[in-house]
Parts: sequence; C-alpha cells; structure tokens
Amino acid sequence: MDEPDPRDAVAEGDLPREVHGVLAEYLATRVAECRDMDPDFADSAERLVEFVLRGGKRIRPTFAWWGWRAAGGPAGGPRARAVLQAASALELVQACALVHDDLIDDSRLRRGFPTVHEDAAERHRGEGWSGPPQRYGMAAAVLLGDLALSWADDMLHTAGLPTEPLTRALRPWRAMRTEVLAGQHLDILAQVRGDETPQAALRVGALKAASYTVQRPLEFGALLGGADDELLAALHRFGADIGVAFQLRDDLLGVFGDSEVTGKPAGDDLREGKRTLLVAETLQRAEQLDDRAALEQVRAALGDEGLDQQRVEQVCAAMRRVGGVQAVEDRIAELTGTAAEALRSVPLPEPAASRLSRLAVAATDRSA
Amino acid sequence: MDEPDPRDAVAEGDLPREVHGVLAEYLATRVAECRDMDPDFADSAERLVEFVLRGGKRIRPTFAWWGWRAAGGPAGGPRARAVLQAASALELVQACALVHDDLIDDSRLRRGFPTVHEDAAERHRGEGWSGPPQRYGMAAAVLLGDLALSWADDMLHTAGLPTEPLTRALRPWRAMRTEVLAGQHLDILAQVRGDETPQAALRVGALKAASYTVQRPLEFGALLGGADDELLAALHRFGADIGVAFQLRDDLLGVFGDSEVTGKPAGDDLREGKRTLLVAETLQRAEQLDDRAALEQVRAALGDEGLDQQRVEQVCAAMRRVGGVQAVEDRIAELTGTAAEALRSVPLPEPAASRLSRLAVAATDRSA
Repeated sequence: MDEPDPRDAVAEGDLPREVHGVLAEYLATRVAECRDMDPDFADSAERLVEFVLRGGKRIRPTFAWWGWRAAGGPAGGPRARAVLQAASALELVQACALVHDDLIDDSRLRRGFPTVHEDAAERHRGEGWSGPPQRYGMAAAVLLGDLALSWADDMLHTAGLPTEPLTRALRPWRAMRTEVLAGQHLDILAQVRGDETPQAALRVGALKAASYTVQRPLEFGALLGGADDELLAALHRFGADIGVAFQLRDDLLGVFGDSEVTGKPAGDDLREGKRTLLVAETLQRAEQLDDRAALEQVRAALGDEGLDQQRVEQVCAAMRRVGGVQAVEDRIAELTGTAAEALRSVPLPEPAASRLSRLAVAATDRSA
Repeated sequence: MDEPDPRDAVAEGDLPREVHGVLAEYLATRVAECRDMDPDFADSAERLVEFVLRGGKRIRPTFAWWGWRAAGGPAGGPRARAVLQAASALELVQACALVHDDLIDDSRLRRGFPTVHEDAAERHRGEGWSGPPQRYGMAAAVLLGDLALSWADDMLHTAGLPTEPLTRALRPWRAMRTEVLAGQHLDILAQVRGDETPQAALRVGALKAASYTVQRPLEFGALLGGADDELLAALHRFGADIGVAFQLRDDLLGVFGDSEVTGKPAGDDLREGKRTLLVAETLQRAEQLDDRAALEQVRAALGDEGLDQQRVEQVCAAMRRVGGVQAVEDRIAELTGTAAEALRSVPLPEPAASRLSRLAVAATDRSA
C-alpha cells in the first residue's frame, strides 16, 4: 500500500467535488483528441461533457470510494488517486444510462436542463438542417451515450491501477454494466406489459438501484482495496438494503416532486408510466379497500403525457389515503435498520464506518 | 512467445469460422449469466447473440489476426487463442455500431433478416403490448447495442492476455471505439446538412472504413505481437489505402445492389440518403458536364424512402454515364496498388505477407 502523500490526499469531505475535478480533467483530454479527429465531432462530444459535469451527487463513485476505504485503502497517494479515477469512471457508465434512458422515455428535462436528445433536436431546428429534428436528436443521443460507455472503460483502464486488484475489480465492473441494462430492459418490459405487480417493481429495483448503484460500486472499491470475503459479504448485505431504500426514496420524489434535487417536476414518473413499488402498493391497497377513485386516478395518470398539476395532486392524495406512501416509508425505515446491522457485523476502519452509516441515513431523509 | 500446440492451432484458412466459434462460446456464457439475472432479459440478449452470430466476413478480427501474425505471433498455443478472443471482441464493437446504425437509419433489413429494432417492434406487435411498437423497438435496440459494447470490453479483458501487450494494444482499442462514433456522427451531420462534397464523404470514410475497420484492427493485433515502429508504420499506410478501397467497394454495392453478400437490396444507400464518394463524384461530374437529368435523378433519389427499382436503375445509368462509377473504380485500383507497395516496404513473415496481399486484392474484386 502506498504511503499517503499530503499533496495527493483526496478531500473525503467533498467527494462529489473531487469526482467532478477528475472527470473534468479526463474529459478535457478526450475532447482535445476528438478535436484532432474533427471539430464538429468535438463540439458534439462537448455537449456530452457538459451533461456529465452537471451531475450532482456522484453516488456511485462515493460508494466505490468508501468500499476502498472500508477495505483499508489509504486516503492519499498515487494508488488512492488511481482508485478515485476508477471510481469516477462509474459516472460515465451512468451518463450512458441516463442519456439513453431519457431518449427511451422521451424525457424533456434532466437536472433542469434539456436532455441530450432534446438539446440536439433543438440545435437541428436552430440550424435549419434537413429531416425531422427529433430523428437527429435520437441519433445524437444514441451515439453520445455510446461514447460515454466507451470512455467509461477507457477511464478505468488508464487509471494506473496495478494488474492484480484491477483484475479482481473487473468482476463487479462487468456485472454492473450488464445489470443496469437488464434493469432498464425489464423496466420497459413492465411498462409495455402493464405489469403492475410489486414483484416486477422490486425486480427492477434490485438490479438498477441496489446492485448497479450501491452493491457493485462498493464491491468494486473494496476489491481494489483487497477486501476479504467477510467484508465483501457484509457490504453486499448493506448495499442490497440501502440500494432499495434509495430507489424507494427516488420513487417518492418522482411522484411528489423535488425539482431542486432531481430537476424533475412533480408527477414526472407518472407521466412516464413508471411502475414503481409505490404505484404497485397503492394499486394493491386501493383494490383491497375497493377505493375506485384511487384506482381510476392512478391508472389514468400512468403514461398520460398531458397529466396536469391538479391530477398529480389527486394521485398524491390517493397514494397517501390508501396507505401506499406509508407502506413505502415503512419499508425504507426497515431497510435502513437492517443495513446498519450489516455494517456493524464486521470490524470497519474509521472514517469508513461512520461515512457508510451516514450514507445509509441519507436514504431515509425526506430531503435527500 | 508460447510454443504452438497443435490442439490449440487456429485454422487460419477459415478465420471467420474460428471467430464464429469463439463468439458463440463466449456469448453462450454471458447469456447464461443473464438467465440467472432474469429469463426475460436473457431472451432479449439471445436476439443480440443471434444477430452477432449471423455476421459474415469478420473483417476486423481477420485484420487483427494478420497484424498479430505479421508481428511474428504464432498460429497456435494459449497466447494465440487469447489473441483470437481479443480479435473476436472487435465483432461486438461492430455489433453495437450496426444495431445503433440500423436504428438511426431506420433500416428494415440487415444480412437478409429484420434489423434488431424491427425484430423487437414485431415482437411487441405480436404480443399485443401497449404503446407504439416502434418505440419499444427503439428502446430494445438502444439497450442491446449498449450490451454489445459492454461485452466487447469484457471479452477483451477476459481473453487472458498478458498485461504488457494488452496495455499497448489498448491504445488502438480506445481510438477505434471513439473513431467509429465520430464517423457515424459526421455521417449523420453530412446527411442533415446536405453536404454533398467529396471531402465530407472522404472524412467519414477515413474514420469509419480506414481507421476503424482496417488500420486500428491491424495495429491492435500487431501490438499484441510486439510489433516495432517500422512495421506499425507500414501496416498503417497499407490499412489507410485498403480501408478506403473497401469503403468505396461497399458504396458501389450499396447502390448497384448485392443482396447476396450484404443482404441489402439495390438502391438502399440512396434511400437512406448516404453521401458517399460515389454520389459526390457523380454530382460533381454531372455539374461539370451540365447533365441536368443526372443531377435531378440523383438528388431526387437521395433520402427518398419510396424510391422504386426503375428510378434506382436510372440513377445507376446516370452514375455510369457521367463517369462517377469509373472515378470510384480508378480510385480503388490506385489504392490497391499503393497498399501493396506499403506491404513490400518491410520484411514480413509468411503466411502473413501473402494473406495481407490477398485481402488487399479482395477489395478490388467486384464480387467481394
């Protein structure tokens, strides 16, 4: 293990800022390469870079970092810097997922800005190019998402990690890139099939939120730090619970609104027809209570792009009335508890132990 | 270098079959993993696998293989097997490019079968799922293309290559994944801008056909074999010429038709509005000759999805009449000559020297 070097110390109190810095530097180099290839392509690549650098919480790199620290990795020195670059590469996998998800869902806004396909379509309109603007927007978003995914691998493999820990960490890296696609695919299948069961929602959540967002990043970082099986198992249990809790909090925000944090207006998940556990619990309880109004309002809202604020509020009221919201809040609280137990089951170094606990608490926080 | 082992010998006389076998084995393992994740996702992943295994010429792995052999790599043994797997991973990068290209161009057929987005839309219709079938087809194609790109990296990094040659070969690997996206992007930009200049067509060809298809695969294989700078430079010059020659042959086939080889009907490139060098040369010559009929027929055909056989034949006749076809044929012959010179400029081991020459000749062959 390298000696910590104060000049190289990673500012753990503000990991999102550290990740931002690493991404900005890496992506500037790649865009410069693109400019040597072709200035028009570099201009497009810059739209992707702006999108990536607008990202906020850097949740996956954060979990990877604390996995590394939990396994005893140092907070500074060249090895820690290499781990930070590898962890930051997770944001490029996520950039691909978001750009392609927004295209698939035809979302207009992301983090308060036009989505990548909307932005490209707008440019097409502005330039007066030929053909339908939305087809150009689709093409640009497909290719820029692919670019993010390619660069994610490049960023990992040029981080300067030694071969042995890198080889170990490639196992969760491989798994997570397939799992996020599986989760997205099943999400869409549930939508087109009109599968309203909590099982379908939980299956998607286990892949997209738990595994891809928390468990695999933790495992990735922990393996870079040489974690043993006992630690890996504890982090795995912790991650499963926290991942689902995060997803459930996101589902609540996606309906009740939280423009400040996610940049998405209230009701957006309803307009997109997302079959979340919240929706599933609401429908199941409304059936049991024979609350026809709730059933009709929620079903009519799902996938209705013209859904207005008044009807969003009706749906919110129905979700509270039948107990759907309470069921989801209870589940979040329960998961936070079991996650904390998993953490306590192994000896963890500080500050990793407290930071991971705090991340778990953040999932239960209504303003998270 | 490992000793050749007859049991492990790669059948160089039928590389496409070897590549097919390696891909089939690798992809079967990945689909089995997907099945553990979710059976519905595995079913979708299998459509991607069928698509990949239908591929024919395996041109990129072939160039990578002969790059390896040109650098003195053996034809058998564990190292050669690892190189074959790494070379085959290029087909998964290409699968992503094709699946996403077909989606962007809204092509119906590829290799005589429905394209991935068409196939998925058809399934949506058959199952009577909700929402527009073509939106589901788009979503499935975006995600399956992403899966191919992720698996390409995985296949390379699990090939069992030693760290040092792998690290060297990652440079062209990185470059080619960005270059193919740059080429696709510029291709689309030229279409929406109506850029008819030969310069635009050549710029796209240099990225997509020369660099991505020939030069980088050759460089990739040669670096795995420990090539020196002199060999790399010669292969680079050879690849630049052969790559463009291949592209020009493809452009001719894309208009004049060659359903047997490419599975595409005659005129398909016209319907898609592709701005090839053939189109550019034809328009430029028609202007110089003031051949109004040729100008009008070609311009009207470009991007017209309803283009019928009779009008395709008119365009073919116009392309011959003004000398566009001859200009392209002359350029192919010239490029084949300079490519052969580049090969002769360095001492190359057999059978790599003859095989690379033969690949160069194949580019000039009208039935290629």
